[in-house]
Amino acid sequence: MKLCRFDGDRLGLVEGDVVLDVSEALEVLPPVRWPVPLGDPLLLHLDQLISAVERVRESAQRTALAQVVLGSPLSNPSKVMAAPANYRHHVELDTRDAAVDQGVHRKALEGVERPTEKYGLFLKATSAIAGAAQGVQVILPERRTDHEVELAVVIGKQGHGIKRADAMAHVAGYCIGLDMTVRGAEDRSFRKSADSYTVLGPWLVTADEIADPHGLTMSLWVNGERRQHSSTGAMTVDIPDLIAIASSMYTLYPGDVILTGTPEGVGPVVPGDKLRVACEGLGEMTFAVSAHA
Amino acid sequence: MKLCRFDGDRLGLVEGDVVLDVSEALEVLPPVRWPVPLGDPLLLHLDQLISAVERVRESAQRTALAQVVLGSPLSNPSKVMAAPANYRHHVELDTRDAAVDQGVHRKALEGVERPTEKYGLFLKATSAIAGAAQGVQVILPERRTDHEVELAVVIGKQGHGIKRADAMAHVAGYCIGLDMTVRGAEDRSFRKSADSYTVLGPWLVTADEIADPHGLTMSLWVNGERRQHSSTGAMTVDIPDLIAIASSMYTLYPGDVILTGTPEGVGPVVPGDKLRVACEGLGEMTFAVSAHA
Repeated sequence: MKLCRFDGDRLGLVEGDVVLDVSEALEVLPPVRWPVPLGDPLLLHLDQLISAVERVRESAQRTALAQVVLGSPLSNPSKVMAAPANYRHHVELDTRDAAVDQGVHRKALEGVERPTEKYGLFLKATSAIAGAAQGVQVILPERRTDHEVELAVVIGKQGHGIKRADAMAHVAGYCIGLDMTVRGAEDRSFRKSADSYTVLGPWLVTADEIADPHGLTMSLWVNGERRQHSSTGAMTVDIPDLIAIASSMYTLYPGDVILTGTPEGVGPVVPGDKLRVACEGLGEMTFAVSAHA
Repeated sequence: MKLCRFDGDRLGLVEGDVVLDVSEALEVLPPVRWPVPLGDPLLLHLDQLISAVERVRESAQRTALAQVVLGSPLSNPSKVMAAPANYRHHVELDTRDAAVDQGVHRKALEGVERPTEKYGLFLKATSAIAGAAQGVQVILPERRTDHEVELAVVIGKQGHGIKRADAMAHVAGYCIGLDMTVRGAEDRSFRKSADSYTVLGPWLVTADEIADPHGLTMSLWVNGERRQHSSTGAMTVDIPDLIAIASSMYTLYPGDVILTGTPEGVGPVVPGDKLRVACEGLGEMTFAVSAHA
């Protein structure tokens, strides 16, 4: 099932090139006041939600996908985590550029075969999440801001200390994630957390639709020119190990997002650019890079 | 006003050594389903909540403070941020210990007068928040876990690009924050984000009660022995500048927490230890360090 957020906060079911408005299904989510349970409501109640979507599907209003405005399918993860330097060619090739390396990456990664095992995952602010409709607003135009396209894994089942063998049962689905990055000396969790620097979408694809998440071709174009192109199979620490490492430190909640690292080809964007990202099985999205207001 | 969360998810008004159960006031918070607005519901609606608390105060049930179990007053910040190396004596004295320094801090901080200006703030997972009642559960007993007591600033008004002169108007209140830290090579946002590694409390004190947040004596004891003792006035980058720096990168939302750095005297804790923390005007709390289940 492909679930999208569209035209503000409507819930959509994507079928081919049509969106079915299944917002009525949101009624199965229990209203909350305080404290709000940790996790994204869609994922906390995904089974009930899917049943409700199936119930209202028949009578749902249909709109051409091309006519709707897509927001991020995830709104309230407790955490957005990301794997550092998780594609070998990205480390070997991209860090030859001093403006990417910043004097830290090559040094820190020398002789480190599996960076996430040594450095853990880093956090991005949940307030940085945006959808295709919002696009990216460059926060510091005098600094270099890079695109990093990634496979985003969405957690469906709460867990701590999850074993590798059990890890995939904690995955609810996938989407494309764009980890926008200001280059510089700042802490990763700071310079990657500007508003709109985590674009998620175009929609959430439930795990049953993706036979092998390590075999997906993923690409990114800037103004029509392809800049990143790889297979998710090239990631160094794979999804089960990322989940095991993350959950060895903290509890994962439904809706939590793990960005699994970016392949080679990262580079700068500036206001006025158009970004297109695509991943096999997950769809594609095109959006604008603009200046922060 | 001093607002606490007690005995599960009850809302309390602290007056002297008594807690008034003002949970009825929570009715003014609008129920939400999806997407949940960014921010902590208590802080998103603080003015209405305070009015409601005043309305129900008279008829509220009263319990001795010593009889109640205190949770974290904050439950749903969009971000928990923290200022790195923000007390000079902490940097100068504590990093002489190689187990604190880990070969990185002294090197990174040499000649850096105001670390937060260079490195920004780092994030801690919101899922790491705990109250006095939960205490700290040590996640990696074979590694060193340190206590770091800090003044926690709670944002009350949404803002981006906040100027120093306007910053204090964005502060809703304060509490004590404990930034528990696994020492090691991992990214700060990973090794400081274990469940229970951000203890907040004992309650939220609204800003009107704290004449000078830079003039508070703050202390921490391990098993009755005082280990940290300083004034918040010793922080290097002060609260208005922390807010300006943070909001230059991302939007701050009501309920967001800024941990303002720890003074000298950090050190390890082990399961079985008792921690006591106190800060002038904010109260004190005592809690247990235990092993993670």
